[in-house]
Amino acid sequence: MSTPASNAAFPHRRSECPISSSLDILGDKWTLLVLRDLLDGKTRFGEFEKSPEAIPTNILADRLRRLEANGLATKVPIIDSKRFQYRITRRGRDLRPVLLELAAWGNRHLEATWVPPADYLTDE
Amino acid sequence: MSTPASNAAFPHRRSECPISSSLDILGDKWTLLVLRDLLDGKTRFGEFEKSPEAIPTNILADRLRRLEANGLATKVPIIDSKRFQYRITRRGRDLRPVLLELAAWGNRHLEATWVPPADYLTDE
Repeated sequence: MSTPASNAAFPHRRSECPISSSLDILGDKWTLLVLRDLLDGKTRFGEFEKSPEAIPTNILADRLRRLEANGLATKVPIIDSKRFQYRITRRGRDLRPVLLELAAWGNRHLEATWVPPADYLTDE
Repeated sequence: MSTPASNAAFPHRRSECPISSSLDILGDKWTLLVLRDLLDGKTRFGEFEKSPEAIPTNILADRLRRLEANGLATKVPIIDSKRFQYRITRRGRDLRPVLLELAAWGNRHLEATWVPPADYLTDE
């Protein structure tokens, strides 16, 4: 728990605040959207690309790499194919409450947002 | 509730997904940290600057402007001074559950993060 040890393990970490430390990994416009899609059951690069937000290909590739590096998703080869699929990990799945609270806030405070069903993001 | 109307109202909105729409406003490394500090009772530019994450001055100024533009904070002149203070709005305060879920995830999955007390971010 010493600061030097934690700094070595998390070279880009800004503080020991758990909010700040989480945002070091998640704090951008796209990472949580890819996690949303993974929790929504999407597994293939092309599926993430087809989401309505139209994530640019290079950003998607980068975010998937970072999700894998941070243990939030795993990249699995598809048998008899040169392609891969992505699966969310337990660590990634534990972000579901963050996504649901963001959705609840959006539904409450931003006009004309889609209201998800009660079981949203519970399937894998 | 038509799409053209909502697009006119939210020119930068990527979709009608409430997660995506929330991240259009909140999805960066700093905005939610300034909201954390506002919810933690900080009101002055210099107080936000002193947080351990050491937000750069120009980014802090930009994020406070954006928080105000999005109705998450209000800028109030300090009487008998040329300075201002910032106060969180109801709309901003409603993000507390998002911050607490981020903290819970960080405490669970990121080593050596500070564990906040149960009443964290309840004062203004």
